[in-house]
Amino acid sequence: MKFQFENSFEVKEKILEKLVAILPIGAVEAHGPHLPLGTDNLLAERLSEKLAERVNAFVLPTLPYGQVWSLKDFPGSINVSNQSLIRFIVDIGKSLYHQGFKVFVMVNGHLGNSVAMKEAARELYEWNPELKVMYLFYPGTDQVVSEIRETPPSHRSYFHACEIETSYMLYLAPEFVNMKKAISDLPKIPFRADFTPTPWREFTQSAVLGDATLASAEKGEKVIRVALDHMVKLIEQAKEGN
Amino acid sequence: MKFQFENSFEVKEKILEKLVAILPIGAVEAHGPHLPLGTDNLLAERLSEKLAERVNAFVLPTLPYGQVWSLKDFPGSINVSNQSLIRFIVDIGKSLYHQGFKVFVMVNGHLGNSVAMKEAARELYEWNPELKVMYLFYPGTDQVVSEIRETPPSHRSYFHACEIETSYMLYLAPEFVNMKKAISDLPKIPFRADFTPTPWREFTQSAVLGDATLASAEKGEKVIRVALDHMVKLIEQAKEGN
Amino acid sequence: MKFQFENSFEVKEKILEKLVAILPIGAVEAHGPHLPLGTDNLLAERLSEKLAERVNAFVLPTLPYGQVWSLKDFPGSINVSNQSLIRFIVDIGKSLYHQGFKVFVMVNGHLGNSVAMKEAARELYEWNPELKVMYLFYPGTDQVVSEIRETPPSHRSYFHACEIETSYMLYLAPEFVNMKKAISDLPKIPFRADFTPTPWREFTQSAVLGDATLASAEKGEKVIRVALDHMVKLIEQAKEGN
Amino acid sequence: MKFQFENSFEVKEKILEKLVAILPIGAVEAHGPHLPLGTDNLLAERLSEKLAERVNAFVLPTLPYGQVWSLKDFPGSINVSNQSLIRFIVDIGKSLYHQGFKVFVMVNGHLGNSVAMKEAARELYEWNPELKVMYLFYPGTDQVVSEIRETPPSHRSYFHACEIETSYMLYLAPEFVNMKKAISDLPKIPFRADFTPTPWREFTQSAVLGDATLASAEKGEKVIRVALDHMVKLIEQAKEGN
Amino acid sequence: MKFQFENSFEVKEKILEKLVAILPIGAVEAHGPHLPLGTDNLLAERLSEKLAERVNAFVLPTLPYGQVWSLKDFPGSINVSNQSLIRFIVDIGKSLYHQGFKVFVMVNGHLGNSVAMKEAARELYEWNPELKVMYLFYPGTDQVVSEIRETPPSHRSYFHACEIETSYMLYLAPEFVNMKKAISDLPKIPFRADFTPTPWREFTQSAVLGDATLASAEKGEKVIRVALDHMVKLIEQAKEGN
Amino acid sequence: MKFQFENSFEVKEKILEKLVAILPIGAVEAHGPHLPLGTDNLLAERLSEKLAERVNAFVLPTLPYGQVWSLKDFPGSINVSNQSLIRFIVDIGKSLYHQGFKVFVMVNGHLGNSVAMKEAARELYEWNPELKVMYLFYPGTDQVVSEIRETPPSHRSYFHACEIETSYMLYLAPEFVNMKKAISDLPKIPFRADFTPTPWREFTQSAVLGDATLASAEKGEKVIRVALDHMVKLIEQAKEGN
Repeated sequence: MKFQFENSFEVKEKILEKLVAILPIGAVEAHGPHLPLGTDNLLAERLSEKLAERVNAFVLPTLPYGQVWSLKDFPGSINVSNQSLIRFIVDIGKSLYHQGFKVFVMVNGHLGNSVAMKEAARELYEWNPELKVMYLFYPGTDQVVSEIRETPPSHRSYFHACEIETSYMLYLAPEFVNMKKAISDLPKIPFRADFTPTPWREFTQSAVLGDATLASAEKGEKVIRVALDHMVKLIEQAKEGN
Repeated sequence: MKFQFENSFEVKEKILEKLVAILPIGAVEAHGPHLPLGTDNLLAERLSEKLAERVNAFVLPTLPYGQVWSLKDFPGSINVSNQSLIRFIVDIGKSLYHQGFKVFVMVNGHLGNSVAMKEAARELYEWNPELKVMYLFYPGTDQVVSEIRETPPSHRSYFHACEIETSYMLYLAPEFVNMKKAISDLPKIPFRADFTPTPWREFTQSAVLGDATLASAEKGEKVIRVALDHMVKLIEQAKEGN
Repeated sequence: MKFQFENSFEVKEKILEKLVAILPIGAVEAHGPHLPLGTDNLLAERLSEKLAERVNAFVLPTLPYGQVWSLKDFPGSINVSNQSLIRFIVDIGKSLYHQGFKVFVMVNGHLGNSVAMKEAARELYEWNPELKVMYLFYPGTDQVVSEIRETPPSHRSYFHACEIETSYMLYLAPEFVNMKKAISDLPKIPFRADFTPTPWREFTQSAVLGDATLASAEKGEKVIRVALDHMVKLIEQAKEGN
Repeated sequence: MKFQFENSFEVKEKILEKLVAILPIGAVEAHGPHLPLGTDNLLAERLSEKLAERVNAFVLPTLPYGQVWSLKDFPGSINVSNQSLIRFIVDIGKSLYHQGFKVFVMVNGHLGNSVAMKEAARELYEWNPELKVMYLFYPGTDQVVSEIRETPPSHRSYFHACEIETSYMLYLAPEFVNMKKAISDLPKIPFRADFTPTPWREFTQSAVLGDATLASAEKGEKVIRVALDHMVKLIEQAKEGN
Repeated sequence: MKFQFENSFEVKEKILEKLVAILPIGAVEAHGPHLPLGTDNLLAERLSEKLAERVNAFVLPTLPYGQVWSLKDFPGSINVSNQSLIRFIVDIGKSLYHQGFKVFVMVNGHLGNSVAMKEAARELYEWNPELKVMYLFYPGTDQVVSEIRETPPSHRSYFHACEIETSYMLYLAPEFVNMKKAISDLPKIPFRADFTPTPWREFTQSAVLGDATLASAEKGEKVIRVALDHMVKLIEQAKEGN
Repeated sequence: MKFQFENSFEVKEKILEKLVAILPIGAVEAHGPHLPLGTDNLLAERLSEKLAERVNAFVLPTLPYGQVWSLKDFPGSINVSNQSLIRFIVDIGKSLYHQGFKVFVMVNGHLGNSVAMKEAARELYEWNPELKVMYLFYPGTDQVVSEIRETPPSHRSYFHACEIETSYMLYLAPEFVNMKKAISDLPKIPFRADFTPTPWREFTQSAVLGDATLASAEKGEKVIRVALDHMVKLIEQAKEGN
């Protein structure tokens, strides 16, 4: 249920019944020729809706700007610093606690947000450990991803506008995918990229890290189901105070 | 046109043609029994879309959290501090300039954001005056508002969930208004409220500042048209470098 | 009574009797050919003294630097950022509370300080709502000003070195006014000035926003009396804990 | 000449002729039974006036709040943190440079401000070394002080409301001294006070560090003359670019 | 070569010849019964020395405090926040560039420092991309680690005071290891630990994540050699400007 | 005893027995041709070890970077800002308190760190006055220094790489002194250096402020003994809660 469509007179009771608020966080960032700039927003939002149904939670409005340092020179990317993101999330978290929520779940659509989300979660924990704060980026999907993928990953942790992410979109937001424009681009990410600041323009012109033409809704569904199952379990534990 | 639905391969050219980016900024805040918590987001977003059509601009994804200090104790309100908001907006503004935009228009749906928006605009001006930054909250509508309203305002500058704002919603986002629940509540705002920190709980329980039952789409349309005309003019001047 | 001329051995008792501290805040800023750079300091200080007599309060030393962004390019202006001003005021407020004051009244002589003063007041409120903090800029004078003025205002909220402000000076600090140099300058403030950062050099060379030659001590006295009456009432309410 | 009594139309030329701005910085702080809370403000201000005459400089309005950590628990003290003070001074310094000043002289009336003043001066130096920034606290007076004093100092660097400081007041601001109330109080400052945070309440109840009854205008004059001579020399060198 | 044992008269020439500065960064943190609190400092330092020999670089003094949030409640841990660490590293980096270094290599002995190091590296990159900044935590050793380990890892990315880290110590700093006290402790790290703030006290009492009794200098040497080879290659590329 | 060589299983008991943690803080800074860049680190560290033996305290790992603004342009100097240093020290202090320490002693090897250390100590005092924080830079040695020195000091408070500091090194770390390269350089420090930002390059090329050839281990020992005696006394008082 969308939190922002509730009204103030009735929402208190529902908060105390649901206890869980889900904040989708995405980004505006280059995603190749076949995916929109807002891909990470769409993924975070749609995934949050599915999750909310399963755990009877509220979905907050999507925070649609994230930390996109690596791709900030690409057309269309809008970058917000880790510090700005942390401050924003911490403010939201404190308000949620004051409103009566006990579990604050961030559903992340963009890997680059992970550092800010974890840091904000720790700051909130220091502020008040009673508020359970979670940062979720397709949890528990390493294995299923390695099973479904037909091409090797470009990088241990990055996936971007590729077979995998495009599959998520085909499952969650197919109306925004233009498979006719999908390309295969397997950049050679230099070893140093994990050890020194390396804007992605140094190794790709498309921002596609793999073979997007192999994407399918079926692949996307398989991974998302696993992710959702893990998310549900994590939230249920958190509601029980673990 | 929604910026986040563009793709990276085609967006550069369009940016250089349009030059104007519109950022709707709203809030999640109590708005009485008949309007949703996200009223200010809906208003900012819908108004931005109308404006974008008129000036051939891009609409960025809505920033859906704002500074709601006065109502932060009300059920459903989520508050972000002025400082957090300023940092976030400044980051976005710098990215927009790097992307090639020349005019950054913030369409504000919530009075409480005004201070942060103006401060961020000045900070961006100091950083680079070539980027024109605008902060617009129904500009130039004082007269038309005083003409259409059937009840006196509760306050010189505040209007909230009342005849006026409800009319905006009936015109711009009627599917989210429940007029059956609309009430008339004319709080006596104490004189001191302009001179000392005064949470609104001190003078209202409904967060409605007026008679919402008198709202109509016609009234809303009259004001919004005037606002839009002024916005269009301001943006056109800015594009010409004034 | 001037706080800084008290001595440490006797002041505690007086603080606990008076309970109210008044901080005049002004600015160093261009005020045309007939008024000194320190106009806002003189106004804030003299007004504070009159107020202190009425409410039996202490007057603190004037904070003589303010936020003068709009006029900072004019000869003689000295600008302090909102952030610096907020931090300074918050520190002072906390000390006042530790000293035993219950009401901290800022008497503002310069519109540009309003944002920082309100923000500082809210921060102090969050810190400890027992300290009542007030920010006063000629409160409750809209009507009397519109009655006494012979020329229309240049702007809805700005008045500067004009018929009005010069009248205040002629009443409160006449020895610093040189009426022989008073001029009439009615700039056309562009509509955009309320919506985009607009240094005043874009529309005035004199920094006079009106007809200063029409100023008189009588006009000044009329407005100041109304302002003082409102200030007295506000402070008395605050002392009673409202 | 007092800068704030100049007007904007004539001040530019004078700035470019004088080149030197003097900012008195004091404090509101307990100074025993015979001296007012604003002693450091009075000293900084009167000394600045004498200095301005000698070097043909402008005197800015006194910044009347300082860092009084050690005495902040004493009746009447108002404490501002080093950080707040630094930010405030840096802002003023930048404005002075933009206005055309080449030498920014801080005349300090309160030892506790020294750290913030030096830090601010270094920050301004990093920003633009063309602006010469000076922080002056009775420079070059060690010898003359040791000659005139009849009682040994309580501490190597502190002097407070004692024979010395009271003498300064008797010379510079005698109308604010009540010698009938002057006392002799020679606290034993513990050795640890230089090595661990030690509020002065741990070793004095009067805040007088010496024998104030031995103060005289003559003693004050002797020291102030030496201080002034050194200040004049320093400023003249700075004007010549050294 | 240890930078701090050089003298100022001869060091400039050597800097311009070597071009590379290595900063070991460790932590003071609980490491079980058999390893000292300073394990990460010893590892970072010894590894840096070996590296410096290979690439003809200077070794800077070890920064011996790091971010140890997860274990900060354990006896002996000293925690420094990410923000403090970032500021410190950025200052050092800027000085190194001013001194003539072209490559700034951080050799990390503690996983918890990774976020701060990467963030500082990016901040330095934005400041001046000419300075190459590297953050190295046993680079390129995933495979060799999986080959040598006899027990499965407790976690995908954490290793701590276990077979692996103890082996590093036995190779690099054996005099600080007490194998008689080595224990095997295989905690079940809950799935949630990657998704919500989880102090390690929730799943371990020893802070040992594995079987330390299986450690050997041979195992340590195998991994360290691979790490060193990768580090050498990365630095040589950086020196050539890649 | 070196804290970082303890292990987590045994350290808690020792902390509660010793109660005192000593943090050596030095710098990397030009020290003439005969002393290494790390002179201040060596002095702080060796002195801390001697002190720890006397008061049964733990010695923490040396913080080897300090504020070296005055000499930052000299070859080999690495500068850290006061703000960065303050944040780092405050974090360490809070951790020490959480670990059970009651006295946190900073042994300083570099005058330039004094401001940051005192400010950090005050911040910790405001946080929790139960933790006694000390900042020690050769306390109580003014008289003995003036007795042993054969040449007059260059400056009232600075001594650097001269007869005095070289003597400390000859006593505490002789293996790092190369007396063959020792020089005598008596710069004329301009009077203004105490009153305006003055990089030392303006008055010295060697960074030696005196006659290093007159240094001897005996002189060093005499001063260090006095310093140690004072330090011991201060710490014993602090342990007793004074």
